[in-house]
This record gives sequence, C-alpha cells and structure tokens, in this order.
Amino acid sequence: MKQLLCALVLCFTSMTWADDPLPSWEESPSKEAIVNFVKCATNDGCIKYIEPENRIAVFDNDGTLWSEQPAYFQLLFALDRIKAMAADHPEWKEQQPFKAVLENDREALLAAGKEGLLKIMAVTHSGMTTDEFSEIVRDWIKTAKHPTLQKPYTELIYQPMLELLDYLRANGFKTYIISGGGIDFLRVWAEEIYGIPPEQVFGSSVKVKYEERNGEPVLVRLPEINFIDDKEGKPVGIHQFIGRPPVAAFGNSDGDFEMLKWTARQENTLQVIIHHTDGKREFAYDRESHIGQLNEALDYANEHDWTVVDMKKDWKVIYP
Amino acid sequence: MKQLLCALVLCFTSMTWADDPLPSWEESPSKEAIVNFVKCATNDGCIKYIEPENRIAVFDNDGTLWSEQPAYFQLLFALDRIKAMAADHPEWKEQQPFKAVLENDREALLAAGKEGLLKIMAVTHSGMTTDEFSEIVRDWIKTAKHPTLQKPYTELIYQPMLELLDYLRANGFKTYIISGGGIDFLRVWAEEIYGIPPEQVFGSSVKVKYEERNGEPVLVRLPEINFIDDKEGKPVGIHQFIGRPPVAAFGNSDGDFEMLKWTARQENTLQVIIHHTDGKREFAYDRESHIGQLNEALDYANEHDWTVVDMKKDWKVIYP
Repeated sequence: MKQLLCALVLCFTSMTWADDPLPSWEESPSKEAIVNFVKCATNDGCIKYIEPENRIAVFDNDGTLWSEQPAYFQLLFALDRIKAMAADHPEWKEQQPFKAVLENDREALLAAGKEGLLKIMAVTHSGMTTDEFSEIVRDWIKTAKHPTLQKPYTELIYQPMLELLDYLRANGFKTYIISGGGIDFLRVWAEEIYGIPPEQVFGSSVKVKYEERNGEPVLVRLPEINFIDDKEGKPVGIHQFIGRPPVAAFGNSDGDFEMLKWTARQENTLQVIIHHTDGKREFAYDRESHIGQLNEALDYANEHDWTVVDMKKDWKVIYP
Repeated sequence: MKQLLCALVLCFTSMTWADDPLPSWEESPSKEAIVNFVKCATNDGCIKYIEPENRIAVFDNDGTLWSEQPAYFQLLFALDRIKAMAADHPEWKEQQPFKAVLENDREALLAAGKEGLLKIMAVTHSGMTTDEFSEIVRDWIKTAKHPTLQKPYTELIYQPMLELLDYLRANGFKTYIISGGGIDFLRVWAEEIYGIPPEQVFGSSVKVKYEERNGEPVLVRLPEINFIDDKEGKPVGIHQFIGRPPVAAFGNSDGDFEMLKWTARQENTLQVIIHHTDGKREFAYDRESHIGQLNEALDYANEHDWTVVDMKKDWKVIYP
C-alpha cells in the first residue's frame, strides 16, 4: 500500500521541482516520462526503484548526442584527413576514391561506393599507433568545422541531452556511449564534451596489434574490422563491455533498435528515441534517410511504451 | 623543494600507520613498495601523485587473485559439467575425450590434447544463452570443491590480495580484472568474492549472437573464440575495455608480461608479480610449470624496478 501511494503521489508529482534539471526541455510527455522514471528509480519506496549499481544508461552517439548530417562526422574527419595527407601521396591526384575527395567531387565519391569508402577509412584509420591516432583526432576536433553549419563539431551536440546526461549522473546513473562510430575516435573528446570517461565509451573498432619498438610497447591499428557496434552488435557490445543489462537506452535510428529491445527485456526500464523533426534548427529525417534511418524502431516505439522525443516540439534549444 | 621533501618524508614513512591496511602482509620490501606507491599516488604534494581518474589498477585472476593448480579452475568447471551433462549424452561413454573425463582417466585426457580440450570447452561453454550460462556457473560455484584441497573454489582466493584490493579502492583506485579466463565465467562471482563489479571484469570470450526467441531478445554463445585475453591480448584488451593506461598491474606469469610492460610505459607506475614459492601452504612453481609459467617476466622483473612478491616469505596467510 505504501508503495502504491508512493507510485501515485511521489512518482507523478515529479514535475513540481523548484529547480528544473532539464531546462531546455519543454513540458511534454517525453520530459515527464524521463523525469518520472528517474524519480522512481531513485526512491526506494517506489515500485520502480532501481538499486544504484544497476543504474546503467546507454546512449547512441551519432544523431542522439550530436548531429549526423549530411554524413557521420567521423566520415567527414576521414575526408579531411585525406586532404591533410595528400601532400605525402601525390599518386592520389589520379587515384580514386582519393581524387574525388581532393576535388570535392561528390558524384565520383558516391560512385566509388562501399569499396571506395573502405579504402578511405583504411588509410585514415590504420597504419599508425593508437597514441598517434588519438593525437590526430585531438588535433582535428580542435579546429575542424562542419561543412554547412560552419561550426566546430563539438558545438553540434544537443543541449537537452547534455542536461539529461548530467541529470542522470546526479541521480547515480552511470552513463555509457554505445556507438556505431569508432571507439578510439570517440574516446578522445567524449570526456570533455559529454563528461563520459573513456572506460564508459564503447563503439566499433579495428583490430590492433601489440608490438615493441625499441623496447617500447605500442599498439598498431590494422586495416581490419574488429567489431561493428551497430544493430545486433549493440546488445553484443553491451554484454561484453558492461556485463550488466542497462535500465535506460537512448537512440535515434533503426541501428539502435536491438539495443532498445535488449534494454526493454527488464521491467521498469526506459526506452527513448530522439526523432529528428526539426528541419529548421537541425535536420528533419526518419524513414527514408540515407543515414540514421528511423523506420521499424519508430513503429515499434509507437506500439509499445517507448518514449519518442519530437525535437521540434520538445526541445527549446538544439545546440548549446 | 616542497615536492622533494614530501618524497623524502611522507613517501618513506608510510609504514608508520596506526592501522595497517595490509595485515596479512609481512613487513617486507614488496609491502613497502606497494604502500609507498599508494601513499604517493594519493598525496598531491608528492612527485608521484596520480589524478583520481587515472588510478586504474589491473589484476590477472588465475594465480594472482586465486589459485590455479593443478589446473585452471575454469577447466575443472568444464570437467564437472561434462559429468553433469553425461546423462543427456549416453554416446559420451564411448567417445573421447568425454569417456576419459567420465572415467577420470587423466592419461587418456592428456592424450586427447588440445583438440580434445577444445571439444570439452565447446560443449560446456557454448550452445546456451548468456543467461543460461551464468546460471550454470552460479550453481557450480556454490557447490563445487577443489579436487585435492577439498574446499570451495571461492575459498581459494588470496587473503593478502583481498586486502590489497580493498586498500587500493579505499585510496580511489578502480580495480579491474584482466584475465585469460572467460569473461562470462568470472563476472558471475567476481563481484561477490572480490568486490569487483561486472563492468570492471574483462577476459577471454566466445562469440555471441543476438536472436529473438518468441519476441524475447537473447544472446546465444557460439563455439567460436572471439578474443583471447592473454599475453599480447592483455594490452589489446586493456586498450579496448578501459581505454586508459593502468598505473598499477598485478600478475603472476609470463601471460601477464605484456600487460606489466604496457603499464610500465608510464612513469611512476607499479608492477607486481606474485611468485608462487609456497609448496606447503599453496603450490610452488615458476619456470617449468605446465600452467602459470613464470620465466621471462621473472628475469625482467629482477632486472627492472618491478616488485616480486614471495608468497612464502611475504604473506602471513594465503587463504581467508
């Protein structure tokens, strides 16, 4: 009875806080769902209480914590790298897909297809040590700008999601990134811009090889995929990297569908989809998008008790 | 000057504590090295101070946190499982290597070699969901006993190392297991017996596959190696699983050599080798052992500033 009372009284009065922990969120069903979940999860009188050690929240990155249009930012990094490396590779002037990148020839680049893309990723993401790669990413993220928005990528993160990360951590949740993007690419800047330390950032990876160079151990990045942390790979990655089932999952595309379903296995969990509805302040896309496609997961979310955030209606601001 | 004074005064007077955090450790150079390291790492006036977020300590498991003779306990688990599963496999009575296991025929088992071992590992470690496997391990560890010592495996953990884990954690270190053993085997009991949560336990793994059974997502364990977290694999695993270089590493065999060297890349770090010298209270083995061989790493440790713990001389007790 006490628990029921709590559920009725405490859990549904969470919106009366003096200090709003999510000021960039409009008062909306999605904000209410999130706040109610957190209030109950942290109140041991609530039926939906969650023990502190089980408060694991997982976030997709591209399209969930920062933008992902017109292309994944890590691909834009790779294209920038091709240009930066071109002086050492005069042969690229006549070699596809590099020629296309150097000439900003979008059509030729698309024509090079997946094979061309793999070549670009291989030369820009392997062949160096892990330390060297981190340094390259660190330098790039400091100076690079988004091709159409003309802002540093680190400013294209979502203010409402930053507040949400802080809010969850303030309530004892451990926040994790489970990204289809590269683990070593993300870890360089995730701590500074999201407050998520390297040991809570996971993603796709290339194989690395241990070597000793002049007696000094190094890890060398190989042009070979180790793990794809997308779709079915996300629950697999969560199992291996965290070893506990998350109680809250945040994604924005069908690539996050299995992660959301994996989290929904347990009762009293939270599934949130960020729906890109704001073509004016950000980008509007879902079912037909070439990246970040949101189709099956959107139907499923609507049929189940999942929370769909309407970026246009639910967020007062997009970027910080 | 202040730092130097600190190094001279504070860091070398650490043995004068009223409350000894390591009561099972004899006063010895190895205890002194560990305590001095921790005292300096946590004193921001010390030249060897370590920022809290970088206080990552990695531990091997077999032979470092618990015993590993006469065979890795996970192999003994597999042999027990063969016996438990035999009723459903009448054909095993005539089939090697299963026949050898069922008849306790050590010679025939050895004759089956690596191929035989892989067959045993495959049938006992794959084909079930990850939840089912955890349940099997949980049931086994509750009741199983060591074949010669006749004690539960969970009592064959090293009391001095339990104190060390607590001591490090009390000083803001995050303690991790980086084991050659199976990640899903370890995670079931590591939290209860070592106080190390699943998300800080890493090891070798089989591939798992995401499936939906009657709409319920499961991960199914496949008879295929995913990752071997041993030798060169340990730095690779540390890089992927933690993403930060550890500042302290604890091992007992050549299988930990690369992990120790990887940790020693940074200055002001601690490398500790547990040397199995006590044939009376535990097991005595090193250079010639069939498992847990300690040879190259022992020479290297003696030539460098690494700490070698002599179990016979340095530990007052072995087991709790």
